[in-house]
Amino acid sequence: MSTTAKLSPTRPRRVHNVTHWDLETDVAIVGFGGAGACAAIEAADAGAKVCVFEVSAASGGSTALSSAEVYMGGSGGTRVQKACGYEDTTEDMFNFLMAAQGDLADEEKIRMYCENSVDHFDWLVRMGAKYKNSEYKKRNIMARTDDCLLYTGNEKSHPFRELAKPCPRGHNLEIEGDNGGPMLMDLLTRNVESRSVRVEYNVRALTLIADDDNAVHGLVVRIDGEERNVRARKGVILCAGGFGMNPKMLERHVPKHNIGNVPIGNPGDTGTGILMGQGVGGALIHMGETFITLPFYPPESLTFGIFVNAQAQRFINEDIYHARMAHHILKQVGQGIYLIVNHDDYKRPPFLNADIAGTGETIEELAQEIGLDVDMLRHTVDFYNQHAAKNEDPAFHKHEAWLKPIEPPYAALDCTPGSGVLYPFFTLGGLDTLPTGEVLSMGKDVIPGLYAAGRTACGIPRTAGGYGSGMSVGDATYFGRVAGKQVANRECAKPAQE
Amino acid sequence: MSTTAKLSPTRPRRVHNVTHWDLETDVAIVGFGGAGACAAIEAADAGAKVCVFEVSAASGGSTALSSAEVYMGGSGGTRVQKACGYEDTTEDMFNFLMAAQGDLADEEKIRMYCENSVDHFDWLVRMGAKYKNSEYKKRNIMARTDDCLLYTGNEKSHPFRELAKPCPRGHNLEIEGDNGGPMLMDLLTRNVESRSVRVEYNVRALTLIADDDNAVHGLVVRIDGEERNVRARKGVILCAGGFGMNPKMLERHVPKHNIGNVPIGNPGDTGTGILMGQGVGGALIHMGETFITLPFYPPESLTFGIFVNAQAQRFINEDIYHARMAHHILKQVGQGIYLIVNHDDYKRPPFLNADIAGTGETIEELAQEIGLDVDMLRHTVDFYNQHAAKNEDPAFHKHEAWLKPIEPPYAALDCTPGSGVLYPFFTLGGLDTLPTGEVLSMGKDVIPGLYAAGRTACGIPRTAGGYGSGMSVGDATYFGRVAGKQVANRECAKPAQE
Repeated sequence: MSTTAKLSPTRPRRVHNVTHWDLETDVAIVGFGGAGACAAIEAADAGAKVCVFEVSAASGGSTALSSAEVYMGGSGGTRVQKACGYEDTTEDMFNFLMAAQGDLADEEKIRMYCENSVDHFDWLVRMGAKYKNSEYKKRNIMARTDDCLLYTGNEKSHPFRELAKPCPRGHNLEIEGDNGGPMLMDLLTRNVESRSVRVEYNVRALTLIADDDNAVHGLVVRIDGEERNVRARKGVILCAGGFGMNPKMLERHVPKHNIGNVPIGNPGDTGTGILMGQGVGGALIHMGETFITLPFYPPESLTFGIFVNAQAQRFINEDIYHARMAHHILKQVGQGIYLIVNHDDYKRPPFLNADIAGTGETIEELAQEIGLDVDMLRHTVDFYNQHAAKNEDPAFHKHEAWLKPIEPPYAALDCTPGSGVLYPFFTLGGLDTLPTGEVLSMGKDVIPGLYAAGRTACGIPRTAGGYGSGMSVGDATYFGRVAGKQVANRECAKPAQE
Repeated sequence: MSTTAKLSPTRPRRVHNVTHWDLETDVAIVGFGGAGACAAIEAADAGAKVCVFEVSAASGGSTALSSAEVYMGGSGGTRVQKACGYEDTTEDMFNFLMAAQGDLADEEKIRMYCENSVDHFDWLVRMGAKYKNSEYKKRNIMARTDDCLLYTGNEKSHPFRELAKPCPRGHNLEIEGDNGGPMLMDLLTRNVESRSVRVEYNVRALTLIADDDNAVHGLVVRIDGEERNVRARKGVILCAGGFGMNPKMLERHVPKHNIGNVPIGNPGDTGTGILMGQGVGGALIHMGETFITLPFYPPESLTFGIFVNAQAQRFINEDIYHARMAHHILKQVGQGIYLIVNHDDYKRPPFLNADIAGTGETIEELAQEIGLDVDMLRHTVDFYNQHAAKNEDPAFHKHEAWLKPIEPPYAALDCTPGSGVLYPFFTLGGLDTLPTGEVLSMGKDVIPGLYAAGRTACGIPRTAGGYGSGMSVGDATYFGRVAGKQVANRECAKPAQE
C-alpha cells in the first residue's frame, strides 16, 4: 500500500505512495472530545460528509473529565449573565483576556472569541445544554451546586480589576457537583449521532497523508489491526488533545517546574495530533507552557491568609485564581512555600493533600516550627496586618474583601512544590493555528487541508498565570466549531497524482 | 528544475524533483561563524570534501561579534587553569553546569563537553589560539586585559558554590579589550582556507533537498541570483545562528519579557537554519528561552548594593552573573527594579544606560524619591545591614566577599525593564540534536543527513538563569567540531531515485 518504510505520526505518508483509498470522506476528525464533537456537528450542519476517529471506546476526551465550565460573556452578556444582573461588554472581556494572557496573548483569537461567545452560549443551549439563571457566589474552584454563573478567573483581583470591569463569565451546567463534563459530552455526542456523521471508535490515527508540498489529503488510521488510507477531500481536523500523558514529550518540551505531579486529562493525551501536525510542517508554539495549579481553596477562608516564600516574604496577592498562585510560586527561589492563616480561618483544603507545616501562638513559635527567619516573618506579618487593618495592601493589592489582620494563633500550610502537595497540570502548547483552525507552517503559510482545535492547538489559554476555569473548554468547543465550518466550506482538494 | 511551486526554508525541495545537481560535495555547511568554521576544519581533516555557504561577504558570524571567551575546564584543568593554580575536575564542572542549566539541562551534551573541553582547549591552541597563563581577577563581564582565565558564570555564588567547587573556566584570548571575537574568527578562517575547503560567500541557503522520508541529500542555494542544487553526499550541517534578528519569529516563539531591547548578533541571525531543519521534521525545543542580561557590573563595587523590586523587597543574591540577575528581575511582579548602593560605591556602569532613580541621606528620602514604600524599604535595608555586619545573608546567601552594610548617603539606579536601561539578548532555542549534531525529529529519530551546531541547535546554554560567558562560543565551536567529524565519517547517501 505504501513504499514508506515505517509509519510514525511525525512522518507523513506521501500521497503519491497511496495506491488506493480505503475510505473517503469530506472531513476527517481525529478525536471525539469537546473540540472534535463540535467540529463534527458544524461540519455536518454545513453539508459535509464527516468521519470521526476516536482512539478509545467512547466519546468524551478530556472535556468529559472536566467540570465543563465554559468561559463566556461580552456582547451585553449571556442570558444568564443578564438574569443575574451583569451587563458584560465585549471590551471588558477582551481587555481582561488580553491582560490575563499577557506576553503570550493571541489577539485575533481573543477578539473573535469575545465577539462570539454569547452566540456560542446560545448554540450550546440549542445543542441541549441547560444553564440556570442563577449565580454561585462562593470562591471555589468550581460550582458545587447546579447554579450557573461564577467567577472562574482573576477578574476581581489586581491588576486585572483595574484594567477591565470584573464580570463572572464561568458557566456551569445545571447539574450538582463536578458532573458537568460527562453531561456536556453526552449531549454533544447525541448531537453528533443524530447527524449523518460516521464515528469510528477504537481507531488509532497513525499519520497524515500529504503531497510533496505538505498539503494534507487524508490520514492513515488503524482499524481492527489494519492500516487504512482515509481520504479527506476537504480536510483533516486534529482534535486529539494535549500531551500531558506523554512523559517523553513532557521531558523534552516542558521545563520540569511546569510539570506538576498529577496530569489532568485522559490517557489519549499523548500528543499524537501535535506530532502529526508537525510532521507536515506545522509550527509548534509555547510548548513549555502548562496549566499548573495549587487548588488552595476551597475553603475560601484560606484567602484571608498570606503566602510566603523561603525568605518569609509575600510574593503575590492571595485573592487570585489558584493556577496564578502556582505560576508565581514556581518563580520563587529557595525551598519553602507556606500559607499562613489565623487558626480559626484554617480548614483543610479538600483538593490539596497538604500538611500543616507548623502552628504557633506567636510568630516566633510559628517561624521556628516551619524554619523561617523570625525577624523577616514578623515584619511580613506585621506589615501586612498594619495595612490590612486599614483595608490596604500597598505591596500586592489584594482585594479588601480578603483583607483582615492575621491574629494568633497561627497555622501554616505547607505548599512547597515537591513536598507531596498536589500540583495538577495539563499542557497548553501546540500547533499554531489561525482563528479559523487552519494550521500554520513555520513560514506562517496555511497548510492546505489541515486544521486543529482544542489542546492540539495553542489556543486562547497559554499560561497558568492568566488562566480561568472554562477557558480551555470554551476555546476547544468554540474553535472546534469554527474549524468544522471552515473545512466544510473548503473546496475539495484533488491530489496532483490523480 | 523543480515542480515545487514556491521555495521557502520550511518547504524542502523533494529529491525526486531534482533533475540535476549543480554542485556536488560530501559535506555542505550553512554559515561560516564559529560553529561552521570548526565543523569545516574537522570534516576536511577527516578527509571529506567540504563546501561552506555564507550569506554575508565574509566569515565571522556572531562569534566574531562576541568576546570569544570559551568556557572550558574539567579533566584536571586546562594548561592555563593549572598554571594559575586551579585543579579543575570534570565532576565539578559537570555538577556546576547541570545545576546552572537546571530544569532544562541536556545531561548528555554537558557530560560530553565536560569530558572533552580540555582537549578542545588544546585543539584551539593547535589552530593558533593564544592564551596567556594568567588570570583576570576582577568581577567584570569580560577580561579587559590580555589575561586569560576568569570567572564568567555563577560558580562562586549561591546555590552553585555549595553544589560544586568553584573554578574559573572562562578563557580569554591574548588580546586586550573586547577583541577576541575577530581574532578567533580570523584564525579559524585561516585554518579553513589552508585546507581544501570550498567557501562561497554572498550565498543564501534557500531550502533543504530531502526525500519522501525527509532524509537530507543536499540543499538549494542562491549564487549570483541563480538557484543551485547542491548535493551533499554525506550531509548538511546547519550553523546559521539563532533568530534574534527575525522579529516575526521572536514575536511568535518568545514571550515578550524574554525579548530584550538590544539583540546581540549579526544580521544573518534570522533563523534560516532553524526553519530549514523544521521543514524536514526537525524538532524545535525551548524556543522561548533567551540569553537576556542586565550588565550591571562593572564597576564591581555595585555588587555591594542590593536589588529591590516594586515591593521594596530583595529577590536574589546580587553576586550572581549579570544574565541570572536579568532572569530573576523578569520574574518580579509590579513595575520597578532598583539597585541601591552606598553613594561611594556608586559608579556609572558603562554598559547599562541606566539613570539614577534617586538619592537620599536617609532611607525615607530615598524611598520617597523612587516611590517605594518607606517601611518596607527600611526593613529590607535594615535586615540586610544587620546581617551583612555579621558577614551573613540568611535570605539569599550572597557571598561574604560582597557583604557590608549599606551606609548613607544612598543612590538608587533604575534598572526597570522598559525604562530605557539595556537588556541585550540572543536566542537559545533551536533544533534538538544529539551530542553528535544529528538533528532529531519529533519522534526522536535521527534525520539522516542533517546536522546542526551553534545557536541553530539548542545546545548546552538554555537559560539566562544559568548562563556564563563562553558557554555559547564553547558549545558552538566544540559541537561544530563534533558534527564535522560525525558527518565526514558517514557513508555517502544515495538518493532512492538514482
